[in-house]
Amino acid sequence: MTKQVKDIGEQGLLKRLQRFCPPEIIGDDAAVLVTAPEQSLVVTTDLLINGVHFSDVTTSPEDTGWRAAAANLSDLAAMGATGLGITVGLGLPGEVSVSWVERLYQGMTECLQKYNTSIVGGDIVRSPVTTIAITAFGQAHPQRIIRRSAAVVGDAIVVTGVHGASHAGLQLLLHPELKQNLNNTEQEALIKAHQRPQPRLDVLPILWEILTPHSQLPNATCSTWGDPKTAVAPPNSPLSVAGMDSSDGLADAILQICRASGVGAVLERRQIPLPKAFDHWLTEQQALEYALYGGEDFELVLCLPKELANILVQQLGQDAAIVGTITTETKVLLHDQQKKFPDQVLSLSQGFQHFQS
Amino acid sequence: MTKQVKDIGEQGLLKRLQRFCPPEIIGDDAAVLVTAPEQSLVVTTDLLINGVHFSDVTTSPEDTGWRAAAANLSDLAAMGATGLGITVGLGLPGEVSVSWVERLYQGMTECLQKYNTSIVGGDIVRSPVTTIAITAFGQAHPQRIIRRSAAVVGDAIVVTGVHGASHAGLQLLLHPELKQNLNNTEQEALIKAHQRPQPRLDVLPILWEILTPHSQLPNATCSTWGDPKTAVAPPNSPLSVAGMDSSDGLADAILQICRASGVGAVLERRQIPLPKAFDHWLTEQQALEYALYGGEDFELVLCLPKELANILVQQLGQDAAIVGTITTETKVLLHDQQKKFPDQVLSLSQGFQHFQS
Repeated sequence: MTKQVKDIGEQGLLKRLQRFCPPEIIGDDAAVLVTAPEQSLVVTTDLLINGVHFSDVTTSPEDTGWRAAAANLSDLAAMGATGLGITVGLGLPGEVSVSWVERLYQGMTECLQKYNTSIVGGDIVRSPVTTIAITAFGQAHPQRIIRRSAAVVGDAIVVTGVHGASHAGLQLLLHPELKQNLNNTEQEALIKAHQRPQPRLDVLPILWEILTPHSQLPNATCSTWGDPKTAVAPPNSPLSVAGMDSSDGLADAILQICRASGVGAVLERRQIPLPKAFDHWLTEQQALEYALYGGEDFELVLCLPKELANILVQQLGQDAAIVGTITTETKVLLHDQQKKFPDQVLSLSQGFQHFQS
Repeated sequence: MTKQVKDIGEQGLLKRLQRFCPPEIIGDDAAVLVTAPEQSLVVTTDLLINGVHFSDVTTSPEDTGWRAAAANLSDLAAMGATGLGITVGLGLPGEVSVSWVERLYQGMTECLQKYNTSIVGGDIVRSPVTTIAITAFGQAHPQRIIRRSAAVVGDAIVVTGVHGASHAGLQLLLHPELKQNLNNTEQEALIKAHQRPQPRLDVLPILWEILTPHSQLPNATCSTWGDPKTAVAPPNSPLSVAGMDSSDGLADAILQICRASGVGAVLERRQIPLPKAFDHWLTEQQALEYALYGGEDFELVLCLPKELANILVQQLGQDAAIVGTITTETKVLLHDQQKKFPDQVLSLSQGFQHFQS
């Protein structure tokens, strides 16, 4: 018979889960972490409820664990912070199988290990509904905190990868009949984008190198910068980059940045990087809506001076792209260079109106 | 009509609750906090479920908020850390009234303000059961972390206040007929001990002063120390204090410290500070069981050399007391100086056996 949480109790379960935590952490009222000198502490928290934020129908416990950890690490990356650790509070009905919980922890630690961090504390209690409460801690240099409110007119808007893939993957899991126009590789890539999103902590060192004048960039690249004194942030100046992650969709991210910064933006609709499979799978309009409103791609949306944005996109390679420009207007316009579509004012309420009806 | 969470939505509620948070915290993917140089980060987390950990029957939303914040601050105090902030994740059924949530936050912030800390981040989601996920983080000097595992044979065991009061208060709320043998002042004091427990962060500066040789203690006191070179910890030596809080009862705290340190203890049953009202309200045995197993008194249980323990108790005043000694045996003995009761081996399983049946 499958062992359930009520068979071993919360204390028994805690003991079993200790193997997922660094041994030096266990056994006191709180965990102790060493922070680097002159770093600020960055903290983010998420509460996930069974049936609302995750479901065994579309997601294995390992993937639920991975996604929960990834979402929190992505919030750290969005602030310019690297991970120090996470705490995990679990509320569990007695009928949940012990193996489900162990697989959840397995998925969390797989994600955390990839980004050199770990579970440093937790709490397990009985609850009528499975609940996962994660708080992630990171550190960032005070001069390198990325804020939503720092976008300035003229900034280029960079996105770090394709958008819409995670939502497409979820649709394939919910409606397998949608798979018929996709080959196996395409199906797997989209489903993986949903199940195992990658927080973009890898972007940070590249970004810092570009923003620091004593970086090791080749001189040839420097010649394209215009006046390097203004284009490159000196070591102690406020950071010339604004941003957040696209966990709630690309449209949400750009609208939030514009609202927080008191600016607007023009987006070039054909510049938004989409999964290649969308070309022959979705209409142009559907593909754009997946990208703008799908959410959970956990990419970074960064606003920085055009010269630096060009270098960033070049260094990131793959699908990173400049998708638009920050403007003085307080609205976000979706523009079509090919004039096939008229200019459109972006809002959150229009999300998914077309293809969900 | 009472406004419910579903009337204004999670986003609407988040906006209303922002007045409980420092304004500089709001609006990014994560909160940024400044830590002092050379301090370690200390992190603790708790998950509280309606009907399991709190209930509107015995506790107002303000008191639930206070208690939740106090429990986490107590975990920090138990590690020797002062608070930097807490994050609050709330899972709420749509039918919860907005005012309940505001009153919860009111109680949390009242407690946090008293200890110079604040709510720095959070998440609000829909859930079938009201759920409060709190993560508290603090900072401590790496040489001043209080661990359970550091008790050594010969240490005196200090408790910082009375035990049993919180459980007595709960019993009075659940069974008002028990009030008949208590006067109003006694009733109120016990109920307040349950509703508004005080995390003992106030003990830390007193403890550090005693443990540091360049403290401003009067010379007269020094003469009682024996050899100050061994009795007082030099600035960079490992801390000669072990401990935890008594949130799960005094018996649990002492047993946990002994287990983690690989030692035993002898407790003098008449040395354990009890609320005065217990004298004429409970039998001797009941009073002891309230103190040992009642829980939620959120006092500190500290093990340190006898000379320092004497000074600590003297400085703390009020009800602080030395209740026993750490021994080589791996069991905890309850001893009666007056020989009215035979020696008894303390265990967790015997808790409440007498007066709950």
